[in-house]
Amino acid sequence: MPEYTAYFNGEWVPLRNVNIDVSTDRGFYVGDSVFDVARTFNGKSFRMKEHVDRLYRSLSYVRIDPGISVGEMYDVSEQAIQRNEHLRAQAGDYTVHQFVTRGHGRRAWQAVDPTVCVRVSPVDFANFAHLYEGGMHAAVTNSRSYDPSSLDPKVKHYSRLNFNLAELEANDIDSGALPILLDQAGNVTEGTGYNVFIVTNGILRTPGDRSILQGVSRGMVFDLARQLKIPFVEEDLQPYDVYTADEAFFCTTSWSIMPVTYVDRRPIGNGKPGTLTTQLISAWSESVGVDIVGQAVRFATK
Amino acid sequence: MPEYTAYFNGEWVPLRNVNIDVSTDRGFYVGDSVFDVARTFNGKSFRMKEHVDRLYRSLSYVRIDPGISVGEMYDVSEQAIQRNEHLRAQAGDYTVHQFVTRGHGRRAWQAVDPTVCVRVSPVDFANFAHLYEGGMHAAVTNSRSYDPSSLDPKVKHYSRLNFNLAELEANDIDSGALPILLDQAGNVTEGTGYNVFIVTNGILRTPGDRSILQGVSRGMVFDLARQLKIPFVEEDLQPYDVYTADEAFFCTTSWSIMPVTYVDRRPIGNGKPGTLTTQLISAWSESVGVDIVGQAVRFATK
Amino acid sequence: MPEYTAYFNGEWVPLRNVNIDVSTDRGFYVGDSVFDVARTFNGKSFRMKEHVDRLYRSLSYVRIDPGISVGEMYDVSEQAIQRNEHLRAQAGDYTVHQFVTRGHGRRAWQAVDPTVCVRVSPVDFANFAHLYEGGMHAAVTNSRSYDPSSLDPKVKHYSRLNFNLAELEANDIDSGALPILLDQAGNVTEGTGYNVFIVTNGILRTPGDRSILQGVSRGMVFDLARQLKIPFVEEDLQPYDVYTADEAFFCTTSWSIMPVTYVDRRPIGNGKPGTLTTQLISAWSESVGVDIVGQAVRFATK
Amino acid sequence: MPEYTAYFNGEWVPLRNVNIDVSTDRGFYVGDSVFDVARTFNGKSFRMKEHVDRLYRSLSYVRIDPGISVGEMYDVSEQAIQRNEHLRAQAGDYTVHQFVTRGHGRRAWQAVDPTVCVRVSPVDFANFAHLYEGGMHAAVTNSRSYDPSSLDPKVKHYSRLNFNLAELEANDIDSGALPILLDQAGNVTEGTGYNVFIVTNGILRTPGDRSILQGVSRGMVFDLARQLKIPFVEEDLQPYDVYTADEAFFCTTSWSIMPVTYVDRRPIGNGKPGTLTTQLISAWSESVGVDIVGQAVRFATK
Amino acid sequence: MPEYTAYFNGEWVPLRNVNIDVSTDRGFYVGDSVFDVARTFNGKSFRMKEHVDRLYRSLSYVRIDPGISVGEMYDVSEQAIQRNEHLRAQAGDYTVHQFVTRGHGRRAWQAVDPTVCVRVSPVDFANFAHLYEGGMHAAVTNSRSYDPSSLDPKVKHYSRLNFNLAELEANDIDSGALPILLDQAGNVTEGTGYNVFIVTNGILRTPGDRSILQGVSRGMVFDLARQLKIPFVEEDLQPYDVYTADEAFFCTTSWSIMPVTYVDRRPIGNGKPGTLTTQLISAWSESVGVDIVGQAVRFATK
Amino acid sequence: MPEYTAYFNGEWVPLRNVNIDVSTDRGFYVGDSVFDVARTFNGKSFRMKEHVDRLYRSLSYVRIDPGISVGEMYDVSEQAIQRNEHLRAQAGDYTVHQFVTRGHGRRAWQAVDPTVCVRVSPVDFANFAHLYEGGMHAAVTNSRSYDPSSLDPKVKHYSRLNFNLAELEANDIDSGALPILLDQAGNVTEGTGYNVFIVTNGILRTPGDRSILQGVSRGMVFDLARQLKIPFVEEDLQPYDVYTADEAFFCTTSWSIMPVTYVDRRPIGNGKPGTLTTQLISAWSESVGVDIVGQAVRFATK
Repeated sequence: MPEYTAYFNGEWVPLRNVNIDVSTDRGFYVGDSVFDVARTFNGKSFRMKEHVDRLYRSLSYVRIDPGISVGEMYDVSEQAIQRNEHLRAQAGDYTVHQFVTRGHGRRAWQAVDPTVCVRVSPVDFANFAHLYEGGMHAAVTNSRSYDPSSLDPKVKHYSRLNFNLAELEANDIDSGALPILLDQAGNVTEGTGYNVFIVTNGILRTPGDRSILQGVSRGMVFDLARQLKIPFVEEDLQPYDVYTADEAFFCTTSWSIMPVTYVDRRPIGNGKPGTLTTQLISAWSESVGVDIVGQAVRFATK
Repeated sequence: MPEYTAYFNGEWVPLRNVNIDVSTDRGFYVGDSVFDVARTFNGKSFRMKEHVDRLYRSLSYVRIDPGISVGEMYDVSEQAIQRNEHLRAQAGDYTVHQFVTRGHGRRAWQAVDPTVCVRVSPVDFANFAHLYEGGMHAAVTNSRSYDPSSLDPKVKHYSRLNFNLAELEANDIDSGALPILLDQAGNVTEGTGYNVFIVTNGILRTPGDRSILQGVSRGMVFDLARQLKIPFVEEDLQPYDVYTADEAFFCTTSWSIMPVTYVDRRPIGNGKPGTLTTQLISAWSESVGVDIVGQAVRFATK
Repeated sequence: MPEYTAYFNGEWVPLRNVNIDVSTDRGFYVGDSVFDVARTFNGKSFRMKEHVDRLYRSLSYVRIDPGISVGEMYDVSEQAIQRNEHLRAQAGDYTVHQFVTRGHGRRAWQAVDPTVCVRVSPVDFANFAHLYEGGMHAAVTNSRSYDPSSLDPKVKHYSRLNFNLAELEANDIDSGALPILLDQAGNVTEGTGYNVFIVTNGILRTPGDRSILQGVSRGMVFDLARQLKIPFVEEDLQPYDVYTADEAFFCTTSWSIMPVTYVDRRPIGNGKPGTLTTQLISAWSESVGVDIVGQAVRFATK
Repeated sequence: MPEYTAYFNGEWVPLRNVNIDVSTDRGFYVGDSVFDVARTFNGKSFRMKEHVDRLYRSLSYVRIDPGISVGEMYDVSEQAIQRNEHLRAQAGDYTVHQFVTRGHGRRAWQAVDPTVCVRVSPVDFANFAHLYEGGMHAAVTNSRSYDPSSLDPKVKHYSRLNFNLAELEANDIDSGALPILLDQAGNVTEGTGYNVFIVTNGILRTPGDRSILQGVSRGMVFDLARQLKIPFVEEDLQPYDVYTADEAFFCTTSWSIMPVTYVDRRPIGNGKPGTLTTQLISAWSESVGVDIVGQAVRFATK
Repeated sequence: MPEYTAYFNGEWVPLRNVNIDVSTDRGFYVGDSVFDVARTFNGKSFRMKEHVDRLYRSLSYVRIDPGISVGEMYDVSEQAIQRNEHLRAQAGDYTVHQFVTRGHGRRAWQAVDPTVCVRVSPVDFANFAHLYEGGMHAAVTNSRSYDPSSLDPKVKHYSRLNFNLAELEANDIDSGALPILLDQAGNVTEGTGYNVFIVTNGILRTPGDRSILQGVSRGMVFDLARQLKIPFVEEDLQPYDVYTADEAFFCTTSWSIMPVTYVDRRPIGNGKPGTLTTQLISAWSESVGVDIVGQAVRFATK
Repeated sequence: MPEYTAYFNGEWVPLRNVNIDVSTDRGFYVGDSVFDVARTFNGKSFRMKEHVDRLYRSLSYVRIDPGISVGEMYDVSEQAIQRNEHLRAQAGDYTVHQFVTRGHGRRAWQAVDPTVCVRVSPVDFANFAHLYEGGMHAAVTNSRSYDPSSLDPKVKHYSRLNFNLAELEANDIDSGALPILLDQAGNVTEGTGYNVFIVTNGILRTPGDRSILQGVSRGMVFDLARQLKIPFVEEDLQPYDVYTADEAFFCTTSWSIMPVTYVDRRPIGNGKPGTLTTQLISAWSESVGVDIVGQAVRFATK
């Protein structure tokens, strides 16, 4: 791996020097941390302000003071991109990770010295580029999302052991499928790092944010839908709605939009990426000046 | 801090060399890990087999294969104590931490190379020794335990952001108080790393294990209760039961048993450590050959 | 009863020859079946395509392959009407029932030879014609709708033992009243085969489809409301909303729209069919070219 | 199939003459029916009285009057065995099915002429005999049991569409596996016609009857456990308890006891039928004078 | 009504002088009060200490300081009986009511001057004496008990609007029937001031105290059961258990034990007061030296 | 206190003569009552019709017949203002309270002689006038709102013991803070007599009426928002939404609108009353012709 430069507790250091003390950093041994992830298109950050704002909402919710302002975090994030620009040619584009832990101390209210890190890494195109054409398979898992009364899913954090269980379960149901989690009431929530959309009779439908992350890509989909005059609605959805939809897709920072063509072994629509899905991918590509699928395929094989 | 020796991925290394790669180790960036903590009394491990068995139940639940058998993990844990025995005089006694992450890979089912670590650290007597005499204050928090349908509380893991929120909330309600969390149905579950007991009319009462960790110290309390002929019961408890109890205490590996004398600003019984609580601490001390309170006070001031 | 002709497993047979093997057909002994019901107005099918589409959504949800396409099922359904047209004069109009069972086999995934049937029967006008004038009585029952996590109410199926209990309970509360069921959270869902509407301050209100069948008649009400410029909304409703509404009505295939004038022994509005309700019945009558109430009264006494 | 004789609405008729009118019998088109199933060992009925009593509890719950007394139903059930004794040699043993529908009429409170049937059929040994040796695989499904507030699982009925979905899901997770369903709170309930037991540290554990059928075989297991001095407990269990158990088995009328060796792809204990499980099968065999496994294997291949 | 003497804010006054200021006493206009009710048998208080202790548990839960100690409240309660002994002949026996409001002030934490009252009134024999012989009818209502997360049912308070709704609903279902309420999960809780018991196969069964008042009469039933060697159990019960029970009864301070013979229009057992129920009434009568039924009938007609 | 005149059971009497019989009036001893509260601005009633209509919806829900019509209640309420106009100068303005109890009788369905009262009292300006400038503090409490299945929050009643507990809890968390209650699912509901609004990105957001009172002031806020072209939405909100909002305020009859600047010790926006909040207060003042804040401050110090 190339020698990336990362921001770590006020300094710029080689990424390999960024380490967490497993004995004393609350971010590791009690999951006391929040994070966010943005990405670049052709080296330019995408909606960085929205990512940093969401990070600071997470910080506010968990009452961690990172010691730097929202504006400084934005600047550091942009700098992280610039400082690693010379290494970008091989990667194609970067994801930009910010994380903050509450630091050190026996109880949360005794903690001091938060750990703050901003780092880049190559978009992992090889993991998903081949899936745009036929669409991804998905499965509804038995492991549920955390209830907001335990931990609000609008906070972006690392306490995700249940996401890992969900990935194993989805793979059991349909090998290679990715999970869709339900909430306690049996409504569709999100995947393990991506939001869920379906299309029914020409209308984009997606869960409201009671049980999901307020995805930045999800916001982009809303904006593109407005631009393309596609009506959309946030509402409670059940697996029935997904199984009987005309189209389905996931969206997240790295993929932008990923068609979903099978859910719980049932074909969605005709089992191929849908018309509106394809249209949204094109509009997104145009908007960022990058052929999303083309770039992914090109760099996946590097 | 003295130079402790730790087991890390098959080798014995200085503890300061134990680090987690924040970019690639799933144990950090998706909370994909489980752990356990035992302790010593006078340098002898306490119920180590039960701790290691519980760790392997956690591993089985999350389907991580640590690459070493339960017997090997036991041996490594005992060795960790022996290899650091020369440093124990100043600490008094050790806690012994084992943790395992799923390793590296994009999705849980793609992960390889689990991270396995066993390390010791001094019991943090200074944090709690002064609380035995008057008892601890506690508060019932708004943040709830994870529902078993999201993540079973019988698994011991680091995905504990909600525990941190609960600690902040308890401190809001009564400065310095520690949390008691409820489940979705409003039943008492556990604290942030300790089990809850109350005494009503001479009977020890504690929640069943639907929504709690199967505490090893909790098991010890049951054994001591049998020995002392104190009847005990596992049952659903509500805050009413706690507020109107005659006594209350917490139990965990480091404290053994800690009296709780105020909950949500209401005195429990007469607001002093209870008779049975004190009796149980004595019996425990006798059983392990260590004056639990005395040792804590002695080493707290070192 | 006249000799109706029915479609049964690929053939047209006398209805009396349509029988289910109680020992081997999963549709009987494990309730492994779905169905739908359309009706005619003056012998013409009403929204047959929507009924057949819903049937195929049910089939998709339960993963039964009926062996004939959605287009073939539509044709068969229309044929069922035509083949019995000579008997319609006495009945007035027909309901058209399609049902499909998973067939035969020990476990659902071993099943073969689905049973497929399409049949007509006279609209049972005598059962409801007399209720249009004064309106029906209803009662909120203790038996709840199935939760979507057990069985999605958007699927139309015969596993309705709870509907039967609800009918008995409604009759206990107010003799002859029909049930309104709640979901687990205490929200209004539907009746035993009909959707529920109320009118509050000139607005039509009805539950969303999380806990109800996506009624074809309900869709017709929406269309008529658009045509008549009556605003309408899908939202969570509680019994309070029903008790304090200005009007209430049920809708279903056979009745079209039925005024509801008492709920749990409380008069709705002034205890008589409401203005908008009446207006909707008229608009529906006009739309299908049949005086809905008049026809019902006329054929009820035959 | 041989010509079995069945009781049908007061008469003894050839089984092939037992048919349900799909247009008018509420037992088919609204699932308005209850049933029970007993079996014979060497042609002698097993706990027939308990089965008939449970049937009458179901009838009482749903308020169907079958028109014959509990004593008459018992006699008819025994007669059904006797009348088909001459055909038993090839079958080995029979299951005895009783079912009652509410009969005919538009609403449940208008129904008349209940349908009452008692029939025998050969135990389907071929379906399960080969599973005793290695144990069955099972999977926890996403489809949940009905909540008691919708329809009490203690009633034995045919409204089981959710059981069929669960079977498909279990087969998705692990081909050929049978389902274990959870309740709304994520507790283990039962399978699609069998109760669930686990063994932990020498104790038999099984869910209480809030969310399950009060299995007659389950009662037999309790009796055998008493006889063998195996402690047992009814309590809330979660998947964690199953995954980490030492043994697991299902019990039902046809199998008696069936070892379960894998759940959600995790081996239970060492992945082989457990010691106590095997002991219970032997004790049952001895009690009924039939080698349960031997008989099954012998007749499976006929 | 005779001129009873009551304790009111530290003084003994005629009962007609006890009034609540509707504008300023929080006990009225925000339901900020708790209470308890004991009774006498032949003029002697029955388990007064348990009633006063429960009152003080209620006070502790709601954090009202009544300004007098638990011992003083006990003395005042006994005095209330003595001061009205001269009027008891006509009444037969008294109920003794204690209530405490939080007093006056805008917010609960600003309240001062609690209102404290202890008063007697004649047991209302005429309301229930005639029901012992045939047993009472009951009905399961749609209105649920408060969830413990809203307001713990173990607290005895006047905020009982839902109890009034339940009484109306029970009367709708079966005229004159009294209610049985369920909790949110559909389990049986209690009535509007009485606990529920059933008898199944010789075992007394009653809900645990998660969702009910810890009835003093309920405790007496347990004591009598121990004395009579009747096994009893506290457990979750559903309506199924009640409908299919052999016997049922309610217990409360005024009735002691009241047979219940119909629930939701279904006969319990043979529809007559049960054997164990009758036995318990006799044992209670003997224990207090009063023929419970005889006294009720005698004074009912006065 | 001045000698106010009140309507009490058909007569106009001095307020001090309005008393509730604690032994016999169901409104006290079983909380069997409903109420409403309006207020005046400069002596003119504000939306009195909406308050009286809501009172009659409450009466309809609980099935109390007050014996006077909705029109009569309106007239009596206006008269109560007029009859006390001569005393208004010192008070500034009045709140107008109507309450109705079900009267007297052993069971709700036996009750007769409802108690009906309408009275005025001075707006308690001193309790809140000082809070407009800096805004109020609030805290999310552990005590939850009643679930609609127990008692619908749209009914305005005195059975509010849980509100009192919530006030104590809020004060524990942040001294002087007022409560925000959640529902069983963890969604924001309302305070102890006031509705909750937040502002996010220029949009007014407030919970729908499943779990709250249909506040008349809330309706006024909607009307002002329409007038000021501020978009608003009713939707499920979680504490996350409140903590991360730009502004927050409460509304109720006496305060009209009260800025909220801290929730659970987190500043809302910049910790000062928000722009839209202030704008709404101004618009309300203009609409009623009273400087809301000015009047409050002026009369608070009287």
